[in-house]
Amino acid sequence: MTPVPIRRDFFTGYGCVFKTRCMYKEVMEGEIVAGILQTITSPRDLGNLSLREMEQLAREIREEIIYTVSKNGGHLASNLGVIELTLALHRVFSSPRDKLIWDVGHQCYTHKLLTQRRDQFHTLRQFGGISGFPRPQESEHDAFGTGHASTSISAGIGMAIARDLDGEDYTVVPIIGDGAMTGGMAFEALNHAGHLKKNLIIVLNDNEMSISPNIGGLACYFNRLRTDPMYYRSRDEIEQLLRKIPPIGNTILKVMDRLKDSLKYLVVPGMLFEELGFIYLGPVDGHDLKSLIYTLKQAKSVKGPVLVHVITRKGKGYRPAEEDADKFHGITSFNVSDGKTTPSNNILTYTEVLGKTLLEEAAKNNKIVAITAAMSSGTGLKEFSVQYPDRFFDVGIAEQHAVTMAAGMARRGYKPVVAIYSTFLQRAYDQILHDVCLQNLPVVFAIDRAGLVGDDGPTHHGLFDYAYLRPIPNMTIMAAKDEDELRSMFKTALQHQGPCAIRYPRGAGIGVPLHKEPPVIPIGKAEVLREGQDIVLIAAGNCTYLAERAAQNLASLEVRATVINARFIKPLDAECILHYCTWTGKVITVEEHVLGGGFGSAVLELLNESNAGSIKLERIGIPDCFVEHGHSEKLRTKYGLTVDYLVSRTLNMLGVRKGRSK
Amino acid sequence: MTPVPIRRDFFTGYGCVFKTRCMYKEVMEGEIVAGILQTITSPRDLGNLSLREMEQLAREIREEIIYTVSKNGGHLASNLGVIELTLALHRVFSSPRDKLIWDVGHQCYTHKLLTQRRDQFHTLRQFGGISGFPRPQESEHDAFGTGHASTSISAGIGMAIARDLDGEDYTVVPIIGDGAMTGGMAFEALNHAGHLKKNLIIVLNDNEMSISPNIGGLACYFNRLRTDPMYYRSRDEIEQLLRKIPPIGNTILKVMDRLKDSLKYLVVPGMLFEELGFIYLGPVDGHDLKSLIYTLKQAKSVKGPVLVHVITRKGKGYRPAEEDADKFHGITSFNVSDGKTTPSNNILTYTEVLGKTLLEEAAKNNKIVAITAAMSSGTGLKEFSVQYPDRFFDVGIAEQHAVTMAAGMARRGYKPVVAIYSTFLQRAYDQILHDVCLQNLPVVFAIDRAGLVGDDGPTHHGLFDYAYLRPIPNMTIMAAKDEDELRSMFKTALQHQGPCAIRYPRGAGIGVPLHKEPPVIPIGKAEVLREGQDIVLIAAGNCTYLAERAAQNLASLEVRATVINARFIKPLDAECILHYCTWTGKVITVEEHVLGGGFGSAVLELLNESNAGSIKLERIGIPDCFVEHGHSEKLRTKYGLTVDYLVSRTLNMLGVRKGRSK
Repeated sequence: MTPVPIRRDFFTGYGCVFKTRCMYKEVMEGEIVAGILQTITSPRDLGNLSLREMEQLAREIREEIIYTVSKNGGHLASNLGVIELTLALHRVFSSPRDKLIWDVGHQCYTHKLLTQRRDQFHTLRQFGGISGFPRPQESEHDAFGTGHASTSISAGIGMAIARDLDGEDYTVVPIIGDGAMTGGMAFEALNHAGHLKKNLIIVLNDNEMSISPNIGGLACYFNRLRTDPMYYRSRDEIEQLLRKIPPIGNTILKVMDRLKDSLKYLVVPGMLFEELGFIYLGPVDGHDLKSLIYTLKQAKSVKGPVLVHVITRKGKGYRPAEEDADKFHGITSFNVSDGKTTPSNNILTYTEVLGKTLLEEAAKNNKIVAITAAMSSGTGLKEFSVQYPDRFFDVGIAEQHAVTMAAGMARRGYKPVVAIYSTFLQRAYDQILHDVCLQNLPVVFAIDRAGLVGDDGPTHHGLFDYAYLRPIPNMTIMAAKDEDELRSMFKTALQHQGPCAIRYPRGAGIGVPLHKEPPVIPIGKAEVLREGQDIVLIAAGNCTYLAERAAQNLASLEVRATVINARFIKPLDAECILHYCTWTGKVITVEEHVLGGGFGSAVLELLNESNAGSIKLERIGIPDCFVEHGHSEKLRTKYGLTVDYLVSRTLNMLGVRKGRSK
Repeated sequence: MTPVPIRRDFFTGYGCVFKTRCMYKEVMEGEIVAGILQTITSPRDLGNLSLREMEQLAREIREEIIYTVSKNGGHLASNLGVIELTLALHRVFSSPRDKLIWDVGHQCYTHKLLTQRRDQFHTLRQFGGISGFPRPQESEHDAFGTGHASTSISAGIGMAIARDLDGEDYTVVPIIGDGAMTGGMAFEALNHAGHLKKNLIIVLNDNEMSISPNIGGLACYFNRLRTDPMYYRSRDEIEQLLRKIPPIGNTILKVMDRLKDSLKYLVVPGMLFEELGFIYLGPVDGHDLKSLIYTLKQAKSVKGPVLVHVITRKGKGYRPAEEDADKFHGITSFNVSDGKTTPSNNILTYTEVLGKTLLEEAAKNNKIVAITAAMSSGTGLKEFSVQYPDRFFDVGIAEQHAVTMAAGMARRGYKPVVAIYSTFLQRAYDQILHDVCLQNLPVVFAIDRAGLVGDDGPTHHGLFDYAYLRPIPNMTIMAAKDEDELRSMFKTALQHQGPCAIRYPRGAGIGVPLHKEPPVIPIGKAEVLREGQDIVLIAAGNCTYLAERAAQNLASLEVRATVINARFIKPLDAECILHYCTWTGKVITVEEHVLGGGFGSAVLELLNESNAGSIKLERIGIPDCFVEHGHSEKLRTKYGLTVDYLVSRTLNMLGVRKGRSK
């Protein structure tokens, strides 16, 4: 068997080291070269390693992560960036006694490898396997469950308070990226920590990126900290400098004294954090184990809140990831030797179609502006940002601000498109209600990744949006059955004089042809796909095809189903739904969303208000539980979002045995 | 008629000026002494006034506001604090062309008086009258609707972007308190503004208070800006100081040069804001019209984002409000001459009962901690904060942080009680879902001011909590029928091993006796108050008494109703509800909450899942609209939350004419 040629120059700073376990695994099935990683049974074992051995361990971990992510997909760039940092943290602190809290959590792979999950690491993000995020249920080393950004400092403060009330003395260490630092709640927590003065070590993992490059005044500030020699100066150096100034006459002396007074607390790096009540340490090279360990030990000896500023590089050690950290942020399986991802099936994703349609509409209407919260690629706005830089706004990880800023624009006559994943839009619930809907402002919410998202699991599924948006007055909610309908709905939303949300799933569309000029849909009008007098199947969004295929199967069993694509979750097409429900007397709703307060519940409310309560209705959707991670199709099978299940529920409801027509 | 004796010393800084229009109104009905305020038909008229005339106008406005709030209730302290600031803003800027955005909005009374709403000012906060908050529907001078804190900078950035895209040149001026500045989204917006570099004048109205005194690193920083002479120095002064340093030999020179370099941007006040990309002006005395006008004009001439730091005093000019700004923040009617509020009916409020019960339980269990977001009085935690300072946490206006910090404490074995108004808890929706419920952590949410809150109106009604909490897995939701049940529910929540929310209304309880040892309620068990076979009335929370009184009235009409106090919105008492619904075949649900996704919807879902869809159900609650301001009883009448309406709906449902038994 010929080994796969490896482009060694891809492994930056590591030359030819990429030759141990995981690559052999790839090229010579079965043969495993033992390394240090295999000897680590608990993070305590790190204490026995020399610095050189730790560096070797970092290399092995890097390979392990690259290998596993190349198979399973996952967050590559962020994890490669924190290998040395994680080793240093586990060397200096004693997990699980000390609490490491990984903000967002998409950088915890090294942590998992060091904390008794090496053997399961090949199951990363797979159904039934270990999660790609910290999960306290998985290990006592995962001090707090994370997934969304900017929560770690708050959780850390809570733990520090508990520790002090308990009279214990463990260390609490939130590790937060500079991207997550732009999220408002991180600032709320910094502000509170500065006030409380409790022992807390915040590690600022500064890679100049959230998922896309960071923006904001804070990012500029971090940049100055990194690059300006005056900022780079340590407190000691400044004081030495001051001591060098000799006494030089009375008047001058007075001036100098006053200057010294102010310099004492002004001319230090990290002033912004110091102003908030922190001791600032850094910046320190996040890939230099020696400096990291030294600085973290220093931090441990300080009383009160400390901020350790660590400079890391996303994708460190694997050139394709270093060069395109955005692509390698969250990635599907790829080829290690050239960094190329498996070619897709050429069907455009919903995200791509949204981006394409936005471009078309923006060319016709210069009032259209687009807003993302640090997800310009993820939400399909990249090309828009290039073509219309003046009308594009990446606000950082700041969903609340994104939505209220959109409200401000809408009040001045603009048509803001706010493109945010369903799960992250939860952050802006009050802003949607209080700033957009209460003023009935025409903001378009492009809700990407709605429904099951697969491998990222419970922190990322978008299963609550119908329920949290539906009760809000003035809100119009659409769900797209396919990528072409998404185009129509987007155009419809742009023409609507009020808040409008469009929900669409993660990943590739159905592959339907796209209208060149997508027709506008009348507000509140559903689509009847087929008529049949035995039962009505009413589907929301991507479940429409499921319902249609089920109806086809049912037809072969001589069961005639009406299939309605609801299109509007709010307002529902009361006339259409009532007409068919009354005709058949039986209805099943299908949605990729929790049942409580969801689409089926809306139909139930409609029937109830219309005195049509005697119509038999069943609702299919996600039950009242958090859904685990795993491939979306596996999850759909588990939760009954399949053609087979819909067919059997229908037959059951109709009292028909499946074999009837056979 | 003898004039009411006035304690003149209450009107601070104004000696005996309190003698014009409004006081005469009080003491000599009908007689109006003309003043400057009556000559102001638009803010443009301010341009014709001398400084002395503006000061006189400020006095007249102060009296008008004190008088009106003493009658109608309202936000007194915050409004008295910004009279001069508002006059200066309207003098320097041209509303409605320039956009004044009032953060929170509870300081807009002067603005309303100056912008054509003087004649309606006596209707302030009354049903059908003008709102206590800025409302674009009310006036073109209200550039953006506000009510919740920390939104103004985001809205302002949105407008500044729209302005620049339109090629216009008006000025956008968010006016934000130092309290609101602790809200995360304000920081998100500051960070973005510093990046965008658009013209924007943020007025920081620093009164050292949000509603309670501010806490946090930021507050300390503001305090240093106010009090430290080195911080107080202007940029010019610093540069002059630097110029005074003579050349003093080569080595020293080099050192000095480097110092100068750094000083240039380091030794200026407002460094924190300058670091984020702002020009900082101030601090300026917020009651000195001349300085205010001068500084605002300066701000207008600067390119890019500016922050003007204005120091004001809450309650300025009325001693009782100056001395107890917390009490005079939001106040009911009071007596101007002594500042005393109308004595209440001695029935404890729900808030007070929560506070009292918390104290009792905290004495028994030292794992109980309490958290407020700048509302320690409003949520009844004041006494707890005094008795248990180590277990009490006021995080500032920072609901997101409050909830996730609670999650951190709960993970370490504590029982955090998070007391937040229903409407403000909307800010922490994602934190409840992602940080508390996903990890199934035992955090107790004490949801005060749930339901209709009255005069504060649509931004403050708590009408969405069932709907946004109900779909979240692991969440238990209770609603208290009265203050004694609140005690039981609170005890129940503390014993429950998972997230638990208790909802209770604003204001006084029913006046029922309080159990000394409130019994714990089994999770998911409803209470049957009376049995009757004609119909079931199922009530949520405070609607229970409504249902019971309706049942009494119905009994006199020979209609026998079962009355169920649901107690648990989630999990519903399926057994009990199904039993009685099946028995009677007819059910009406009553809730002070929107109908979409609310309590009635939950019952509907239950009947549906239980194949009890043929049971006739009607739901009473708030329809799909934002509810205006006005006295809660007026609103309840309008929206059908009355005994009469429930009786008539019942009779109608049963097909009984009301006069039947007569």
